Order: sequence, then C-alpha cells, then structure tokens
Amino acid sequence: MDYSKIHTLSLTVDPFNTDFEKRWSWMALGRTLLNAAEQHAKARGFGMYNVNSENLTWVLSRLCVEMNSMPMVWEKVNVSTWIENIYRLFTNRNFSIKGPDGKVYGYARSIWALIDYQTRLPQNLEELYRENFSTYLDPDEPCPIKKQGRVYPLNDSNWVKDIETEYSDIDLNGHVNSIKYIEHIMNLFSLSDYKGGRNLKRIEIAYMAESYFSDKLSLYKRDIDENIFEVEVRSKRLSTISDERIITKESINQHETLVRCKLSFE
Amino acid sequence: MDYSKIHTLSLTVDPFNTDFEKRWSWMALGRTLLNAAEQHAKARGFGMYNVNSENLTWVLSRLCVEMNSMPMVWEKVNVSTWIENIYRLFTNRNFSIKGPDGKVYGYARSIWALIDYQTRLPQNLEELYRENFSTYLDPDEPCPIKKQGRVYPLNDSNWVKDIETEYSDIDLNGHVNSIKYIEHIMNLFSLSDYKGGRNLKRIEIAYMAESYFSDKLSLYKRDIDENIFEVEVRSKRLSTISDERIITKESINQHETLVRCKLSFE
Repeated sequence: MDYSKIHTLSLTVDPFNTDFEKRWSWMALGRTLLNAAEQHAKARGFGMYNVNSENLTWVLSRLCVEMNSMPMVWEKVNVSTWIENIYRLFTNRNFSIKGPDGKVYGYARSIWALIDYQTRLPQNLEELYRENFSTYLDPDEPCPIKKQGRVYPLNDSNWVKDIETEYSDIDLNGHVNSIKYIEHIMNLFSLSDYKGGRNLKRIEIAYMAESYFSDKLSLYKRDIDENIFEVEVRSKRLSTISDERIITKESINQHETLVRCKLSFE
Repeated sequence: MDYSKIHTLSLTVDPFNTDFEKRWSWMALGRTLLNAAEQHAKARGFGMYNVNSENLTWVLSRLCVEMNSMPMVWEKVNVSTWIENIYRLFTNRNFSIKGPDGKVYGYARSIWALIDYQTRLPQNLEELYRENFSTYLDPDEPCPIKKQGRVYPLNDSNWVKDIETEYSDIDLNGHVNSIKYIEHIMNLFSLSDYKGGRNLKRIEIAYMAESYFSDKLSLYKRDIDENIFEVEVRSKRLSTISDERIITKESINQHETLVRCKLSFE
C-alpha cells in the first residue's frame, strides 16, 4: 500500500447505526464511504471543501458496493479509498472495507464528476486537476469486484409506490441525498427479506438526474429472480418548477428517471 | 472538569450529515449524543455493550436538546456527557455540545431506564449499579437548560398524516429507533420552516411506548404559536400482533401514544 495514495477512515460500528439484525446499516456504510472519499480528497487539495469555494462540487454518478459480510455492532472497521483513474469528465474512486485484522468485508467502486454549481456543466478534470490527480492515481491497488453493469428501464407495470421528498432527504446541495435514495430503495423490501442470515450482498446504483424538496418520486421494482431486483426511481416534479423553463402540461407530468439500481441478495 | 466522570466524543461535521442549510443535521446530532452516552457507559462497565449480555438494555425515556446555534459543515465539535444523578428506576444523563475553542453550541438532558429484554421490566438501578454509578455521578457539572416540560395529549383534529414504519426505521432492539422519530417529526415541517436563519432551537421528547416494523403511525401536530409546536405520534398496530395478547377489535384499532414532543423555533 502506498499510503500517500490511500486514505483510511477507522471507526467502530455503534449500536445507533445498525439494522435490526445488528449489522452495520447500508446507510451508515454509504455515508462513511462518501466521508472517506471527502477526507482523502480534502487532504490532497481537491475535496468538496476545496472546490466549493470555486463554485464547483463533486457529484456521485455511479456507486457499486459488494459485501461478503456486513460488520456487526461493536466491530472495528477500516474504510480505505483511492483513485483508480481519471478521465476527461469522470474519475473512478475505489474503496475497501476491512477489519483491523485484514478481514475483507467488501469493496466498492464509484464514479464522480466535478460540476459547476450554476451551469451544472461537468469540468474537464484532465485540465483542472491532472497534476494533483496523477500524483495520487493508484490503478494497481486491487478492487476485486465486478464493474457496475447496466440497468435497463423498468416498465410502468413495475410501479410499487410514490413518495414525496421531505426535509431530511435534502442535502447541502439542495438535492435529495444519494444515500437517502438507497434508504428509500431498501425500504421497498420487508423486514423478512433481510432476516435470518439473508443479506443484501451487492448494490449498483446509477444516479442520472437530481430531485428536490417536495418532489413526488415514483418507485418501480422488477424481480429478476428471488435474489436479484432492479429498481428505478422517477420524479414527477410538483413544487419546484424552475422559472426559466417553459412549463407545458407534458413537462410537468413527465416522469424523469433519477436513479436506476440493481440489488443482489444471498 | 473531572475527566473520570466525563466522556468527550470529538468529530468534524462532514458534508453527508448536514441539512440543506449546511447545518449539522439533528439526526446526526441525535445519533452522536446516544453514541457518546454509550462510549461513556461502556468505558465504565455499564454500557449496552456490557448489559446486553445480562439480557438487559438501556431505554431512552426523555430527551431534551437546546441549541444556541448548530455547528456548520467542516466545524469541529466536542460532545461531552456525564451522569447527573441516579434514582431507583431512572438515571439522568446530560450533554454539552461545544467547539474546540469552548464555544457553546448547546446542551442536552436525557433520562434512561434499564430494562429486561424479556419481561420489559425496569431494573432497580440503586441495587444493580449503585457502586459503579456513584463513582461517576457529577451533579455539579452545569447543564444550563430548562428541564423538560410536560406535553399534553393532542386532539384527533390535530391529525396531520399516517406513515408506515419501514426497514430503515428499525434498530437492533427491533423497535423504531428513537432518532428516527425525530426525523419523522421534523419532516412534518416544510423546507421553508428551516430556511433563512430560522432554526429549530429546542426539542423535548417523551418516549412512552415502542413501535415495530410495519406499524402504522399517526402524526398529530398542534401550533402553540408561530414558533412553538407540539407533536404526538400514535400507533395503530397492523402487522406485529403479539400472540400472547388477546386480540379484540378494539385493541387492534386502539391508538397508543408512542411519543410526545415539543419543538421551539427561533
């Protein structure tokens, strides 16, 4: 391990961040992955902390997490993160989730874009950050999980329910928080789906568009088999209608795909 | 400060635990208070970590948090906790939330009972833990916020909405998590209620009964004035009907008060 390229966040799974089976919650894991990424980037000069003052922010585009097992309450966890590669408009950041004894709980892959707050346009990372980034690229650090696959659009017949976004869904960018989507998606399943040794093993998410406070979200779910499910979240914009847009009846009612997700249990 | 009596948890407010105004979220604050309490108690031999093996667990009965201001993203926070006193069936635990420079963000008071997992009966703390506890009692450490007041029952006409508890609501005891109630209660307000320098200043919660997965919760809200609100959460048990109880039509439909809460904005 080249420690100048890798940042590790250490914690103990506390009893207020577990699910009913005493497993570390996927939401706490998700927040920790993002937090480790930010700590890594901030220490190297290109975190949200640094780029926000230039009216830029990092946007999570893809997240894929695969867990052999989930750390249990009271267990110690080291979440390490490094940058695999950099492209013009994206960067790949990987993660390992291990015990202090080296036990592998799982790995994660993520893809990020750096966008301008106002224009929402992605920045050219090769021009902006080539120098900083290349110092920290670590393409050889192993992340032995499959890359994220494609999730195809779901049908109207896969509709499960509508929810309306609330205060606690909204993050400091004014959008529904990426981890809150995972919470809403996991809540499509019953407690019995997570019970008795049955675990969510792998989750793959594509974040495609953003939603806002008081948006009505429609959740669609397709059962591929008894363990594999695809989920799509679409938005029907209700309250937050931008003044700059020309509003027609169609544009208000049109469902926009926000998130596509695949979940694998075992 | 007597450091043998006080435990301090230090953290930096990260961008994945804030609200849309870049303030530390009340849910993250709440989880941190509980976590600081557990760290304090665990290190002294009477945390959930210790008592769970005796088939006992700590139950939060009252929580009152008053914030002069909320730490903002990137700010460092020290959450300190100590035991104010011990009674036969309850113990009072207080908290301070300060910056590293001593700036006071706020204080909190809490009341806990130690119950038996199976019988649900509260244990006599004076008999069980008198010795340990009295070593760590710190009644003179200041917690300069008013004690929790009483919230009176709300009327049916105060009904706002029903929600059904989901996977992410349930904690390792199999009940709806105490902090999740705060989230549901705060979601009764619109984004504009939290906007433009308007802050939730004080929250007082009485946890009166427990709810379970897939319970239907009814939320009631009464406006005392433009800044003070009372909330009541009642349960209509749907799916989790205990086999031991005699179920009548009345008992199934009866709304039980789970939580009463008072919120003060400024």
